[in-house]
Amino acid sequence: MKVAILGFGNIGHAAEQAVKAAPDMELAGIFHHNDCLDCMDADVVLLCTPTREVPKFAATMAARGICTVDSFDIHGQIPSFRSQLDPVCHANKTVSIISAGWDPGTDSVIRALLMAMAPKGLTYTNFGPGRSMGHTVAAKAIPGVKNALSMTIPLGTGIHRRMVYIELEEGSDFKTVEAALLKDDYFAHDETHVIAVDSVDALNNVAHGVNLVRSGVSGDTHNQRFEFNMEINNPALTGQVMVSCARAAFRMKQRGQFGAKTMIELAPVDLLPGSVEENVAALV
Amino acid sequence: MKVAILGFGNIGHAAEQAVKAAPDMELAGIFHHNDCLDCMDADVVLLCTPTREVPKFAATMAARGICTVDSFDIHGQIPSFRSQLDPVCHANKTVSIISAGWDPGTDSVIRALLMAMAPKGLTYTNFGPGRSMGHTVAAKAIPGVKNALSMTIPLGTGIHRRMVYIELEEGSDFKTVEAALLKDDYFAHDETHVIAVDSVDALNNVAHGVNLVRSGVSGDTHNQRFEFNMEINNPALTGQVMVSCARAAFRMKQRGQFGAKTMIELAPVDLLPGSVEENVAALV
Repeated sequence: MKVAILGFGNIGHAAEQAVKAAPDMELAGIFHHNDCLDCMDADVVLLCTPTREVPKFAATMAARGICTVDSFDIHGQIPSFRSQLDPVCHANKTVSIISAGWDPGTDSVIRALLMAMAPKGLTYTNFGPGRSMGHTVAAKAIPGVKNALSMTIPLGTGIHRRMVYIELEEGSDFKTVEAALLKDDYFAHDETHVIAVDSVDALNNVAHGVNLVRSGVSGDTHNQRFEFNMEINNPALTGQVMVSCARAAFRMKQRGQFGAKTMIELAPVDLLPGSVEENVAALV
Repeated sequence: MKVAILGFGNIGHAAEQAVKAAPDMELAGIFHHNDCLDCMDADVVLLCTPTREVPKFAATMAARGICTVDSFDIHGQIPSFRSQLDPVCHANKTVSIISAGWDPGTDSVIRALLMAMAPKGLTYTNFGPGRSMGHTVAAKAIPGVKNALSMTIPLGTGIHRRMVYIELEEGSDFKTVEAALLKDDYFAHDETHVIAVDSVDALNNVAHGVNLVRSGVSGDTHNQRFEFNMEINNPALTGQVMVSCARAAFRMKQRGQFGAKTMIELAPVDLLPGSVEENVAALV
């Protein structure tokens, strides 16, 4: 299948490597946001643009009958994005797989599976240690901040500490900047530590992690305990998951299973190269 | 949906509790192996018989157009069981979900998901501590053994120790029994310890566990590390997974997605009560 990439930041670069490593894919081109996209000849387009631009490009491609995969990550807006894109996919007989990264994405699949295994109980998703893009952008927006890095540190039960490393603009006062940051809505509700550093670039690292735990009830049996951990290169995993989902989108379109789908709506075997029979023999 | 249970051992009892706890299911009856099954009025039958009897009952039910779910657990025979049952399901427009427990079953889903996240690398599934049914039966078959319990102890990288607790028959010699057991094909290849006890019943416990690890490559990025752990009541989890799969079988039949399917061929959202929209909002 021919797979094109739209947008070429961290995720786009990682997706390129994953397409090249896939035994059943051909890279159909890498396009920038502002390119003319009419020449695009692809079965699936990976939308590696900033997340806020994803819905627009997803709708454009779906209207042309081309499958898309994105890693749209604004959790609260996923249901409305899905419900708006779904009829466009059906009208044009195509498939869009949305929010296909690790959270939302593979973590969502694990959460769904654990609900099926122990329907009553509590799941906690603990993120990090790793860089939070949203909090980093919020910190950079504080007056007097030249550059920033906000690390998410898991404290368990879904509670997180924010370690915010800031490079000050010349002449700005640390205490003033710190007070403004601690009042910002992104930081006001969590334990937050602000640390002045000479170079934020020297700290940058795309490592991230997850610790997802559930204790629940299967039937009437309590104390069923589950845990999923990962320590990963963040853009590499996101790009790989998108590429695996491109395979699923292509196959679902061929079978006529049209629509906008999240990863909990896909059969995991569709993510993998090879036949169903080969994967059943190897993995079940 | 109306769900019946065939077979009423450990798994059948656990499945009954899970059906009763499900908000969208009605228990359509519990049947024993030798019952006349013609009176069965169910949308889905959970096959909780001994595993070797599963293929026969699955084919009988599929021929009557009734969905089934089983936890057939002889790994090497799953592909042939699936390929033989699949045409019966298609011919009778029904769905059978096979090998739906935790391994094979939910572990298979995790293994498939991790392959999609990091296609190159090694996955190790470490079982236990917990009772191995196959090894326990093999130990009981050794002459001079009155009762036995074989515990599986994980040593990492898929290597396991066997701790075998035996109750001797009167007049039998421990050293003779131990030597025979250590030569048995079930035990000859693993580190095995044989321990004589007064009462095997006093040790019985349905706790089990899994530690599933993968280190792999996403795109061209190495050292992506993943781990799944669980500590569970074994029959309770198996029964619950079967009941969740009953929901998926029922829905897939309604959509015309007929066939014999393993859990890696199901969309996880189909395992859960409630609408797709509700589950996307809650879990993605």
